[in-house]
Amino acid sequence: MGGRIFNFNAGPAALPLPVLQEIQREMLDYGGTGMSILEISHRSKPFEEILDDAVVRIKRLLKLDARHHVLFLQGGASMQFLMVPMNLALPGAAVAYVDTGTWSTKAIKEARNLGKEVAVVASSQDRDFSYIPKEIPVPSDAAYLHVTSNNTIRGTQFHRFPESGGVPLVSDMSSDIFSRVFDVEPFGLLYAGAQKNAGPAGVTLVVIREDMLERVPKALPTMLSYRTFVEKKSMFNTPPCFAIYVVRLVVKWLEETVGGLEAMERVNRRKAALLYDYLDSQDFYRGTAQKDSRSLMNVTFLLPDAQLEQAFLEGCAAAGLGGLKGHRSVGGFRASLYNAVPLEAVEALVEFMKEFARKNG
Amino acid sequence: MGGRIFNFNAGPAALPLPVLQEIQREMLDYGGTGMSILEISHRSKPFEEILDDAVVRIKRLLKLDARHHVLFLQGGASMQFLMVPMNLALPGAAVAYVDTGTWSTKAIKEARNLGKEVAVVASSQDRDFSYIPKEIPVPSDAAYLHVTSNNTIRGTQFHRFPESGGVPLVSDMSSDIFSRVFDVEPFGLLYAGAQKNAGPAGVTLVVIREDMLERVPKALPTMLSYRTFVEKKSMFNTPPCFAIYVVRLVVKWLEETVGGLEAMERVNRRKAALLYDYLDSQDFYRGTAQKDSRSLMNVTFLLPDAQLEQAFLEGCAAAGLGGLKGHRSVGGFRASLYNAVPLEAVEALVEFMKEFARKNG
Repeated sequence: MGGRIFNFNAGPAALPLPVLQEIQREMLDYGGTGMSILEISHRSKPFEEILDDAVVRIKRLLKLDARHHVLFLQGGASMQFLMVPMNLALPGAAVAYVDTGTWSTKAIKEARNLGKEVAVVASSQDRDFSYIPKEIPVPSDAAYLHVTSNNTIRGTQFHRFPESGGVPLVSDMSSDIFSRVFDVEPFGLLYAGAQKNAGPAGVTLVVIREDMLERVPKALPTMLSYRTFVEKKSMFNTPPCFAIYVVRLVVKWLEETVGGLEAMERVNRRKAALLYDYLDSQDFYRGTAQKDSRSLMNVTFLLPDAQLEQAFLEGCAAAGLGGLKGHRSVGGFRASLYNAVPLEAVEALVEFMKEFARKNG
Repeated sequence: MGGRIFNFNAGPAALPLPVLQEIQREMLDYGGTGMSILEISHRSKPFEEILDDAVVRIKRLLKLDARHHVLFLQGGASMQFLMVPMNLALPGAAVAYVDTGTWSTKAIKEARNLGKEVAVVASSQDRDFSYIPKEIPVPSDAAYLHVTSNNTIRGTQFHRFPESGGVPLVSDMSSDIFSRVFDVEPFGLLYAGAQKNAGPAGVTLVVIREDMLERVPKALPTMLSYRTFVEKKSMFNTPPCFAIYVVRLVVKWLEETVGGLEAMERVNRRKAALLYDYLDSQDFYRGTAQKDSRSLMNVTFLLPDAQLEQAFLEGCAAAGLGGLKGHRSVGGFRASLYNAVPLEAVEALVEFMKEFARKNG
C-alpha cells in the first residue's frame, strides 16, 4: 500500500490492513443494506449478527465456556478501574492489587477513592517499575487479585500469572489481549480497552465469569453494573456499534487469516525476539525492562545520549517508521509490536537502528 | 449512489453522504500520516487538531461562549442519566424533571436510584406521552430542571423550553441537537448521544457551563466527574477517536455545506411540514402526537389496520425506504427526519404512502 507507514503506536495502534480495506470497501453500503455500518440500527438483524459473531469468535479464541459472558462496554480501562471494585468487592474483605506502574497505580487509586480496603500485595516501584514482582502473597480472603498483564509504558509483562490459591484473578489486558495463549481458568474477570490489540478506541471488552455476578450489589446505577450488560447482552442502550464491528473484523482476521492465538503468539515471539536479540547484541541502545519481565508487546529502550533523540525520531519518520516516541511520562523510545504489526516492520526498524547506531555510535 | 436507500432510522441514523465518502476516501491514510484515523494516537497532532476543530465548530454552531465547555464522553445518554444528578445535585435541594416518556422516565429512575430527592414537576403520562406539558411549575430552589428536548419514541418535541426562573436547565438533546436554533442561555448543561444528528454511536456530547463545575463533588470517581473531562479536555484517557472524527466531519458539513443551524432548521421544517401536511390531509394514516407537540425529527403514525403493517414495511423496503418501523415499545411507524435525511427522501416516502393508501384505503 503506497503511502502506508510501519506503525509502532502504543494505542490507538496498527490494525490489520485487510480489516481496514474491508471497512473502506463497505463504508457506503454494509452487506447490501443500502446503509453504512454507521447508519444501521443496533436493534437490526445485521448488527445483531455482528455482535453475536464477535462474541462467538472471542469465546473460541480465549477458550471460554458457558460460564463466561463477553461484554462490550464504553469508557476504556479507566472506567473498569472503578467498575471492578464497585461490582466485585466483598463486604469485610480487602481487594488485592499488584502495582506494576502507571495503569495499575491508577486502578489502585480508583479503588481507594471508592473507600475500598485495598491491599497492595506486591509492587515494583522500588526499581522504577522495570520488572514484574515474583513474590506475590495473596491474602486467602481477598475479594480478588488485580494485575495489569502488560505494562505498555514500562515495557513489562506477566509471563506467568500469580498463583492466587482460589482468589479470583482480575486483569487489565488492554495491551496484550489476543496476543498469546493463556489459561482463563483462574480469572473471575478480565477487561481490555480495544485500541491496542482488538480494534479501535471506543469499546472495552469485558469477560466476566458467571459466579462473579452474585457479588454485584443490587443498588448500583444501571450503567455501572455488570449485571445490566449481561442481562441485556451489551445492548441496554446503544452500544458503540462501529467499534464492535471493527473488533469483529479483527477477531475474524485472527481466526481465519492468522490461524488463532497459538499462531499469533508464535509470530509475536519472533517479532519481539528480533528486536530484543538486537538490543542484547550491542551497547548503543539500552533496553529499560528487566530481561525476565520484558513485554512481547512494547519494547522500551533508550539512546546513549538524549541529544540524539530528535535525530532518531526524524530518521525513523524518514524511513517510514512511526509511533516510536516513548510515553510522555518516561521518555525514551517504545516500539509497540501488537498483533497487526508485521514482522517486516520489525525488520525495518532493526535495520534502521543498526544504521543509526553505526552513524552515531 | 447506486444501492443506497433512503434511511429513516431513529438512531443510529443517516449520515451525510459526503461525510461517509470522506471517511471512505481516507480510511487507509489519514491526512498523509500513512496511518488510518483508527490507528493514530489520540495524543498526536493530527488527532488533537480534529478534536479542537470539532469543539470550535460546535461552539460556533450553538453560539456558546467562554463559559461553556464542550466535552466528549462515552456511555450515551444513559450514562448522563446518572452523571447529571451525581455531579449537579445540591445538598438539601430537589432535582426537578419533566416526564415526557421513555427516556425522561429512565433519567428520573436513575436519579432516584442515586437517592436524590426527585420532583417530577410535569408529566404527559396521562395521555400516553402524546404531548409536551404546558404548565411546568419549577420550584425556585431546585438544583436543576431536566427536560428531554425531543422524544424519539413518542414523536414529541419541546418547541419552547420551560421558563425556569433562574433554575438551570439540563437537557437530553440526543435526538434534536444541531437540528434548530435555540437560546443556550438558560442551560447549565446539555448532552446528546451522537448517533442521531451528530455522528455515529459511541460518543456523547456534553456542554457544561463553567458555574456548574462548582457543584461537582470532589470525591467522585475520576471517570464520573465532569471536572475530569473539563480539566483534561476530554483526554483523561483514550477518547472514542473515530466517533469524534466523524462528529467533526458532520459539524463541518453543517457549517460549510448546509450553512449553519438557521439553514438546517429551514430544511428540517420543510421536511417535517411535507409529511405532517400529508398526514393532516387524509384519514388513512393517523399521527400519534398532539399537533402542538409534534417533533420535527420523528414523525410517528399508525395505519388504520394492524393487518396492513407487514405489507407497509415490505412496500417501503421495495421502494428503497428503510428504518420506518416504530419503536418496539409502542409499535406503529416512525419516520426519523434527522439533519442528514434529504428532502427527496421525505418526498419519496410521501409518494409511497399515498400510493399505499390508495391501494389499501
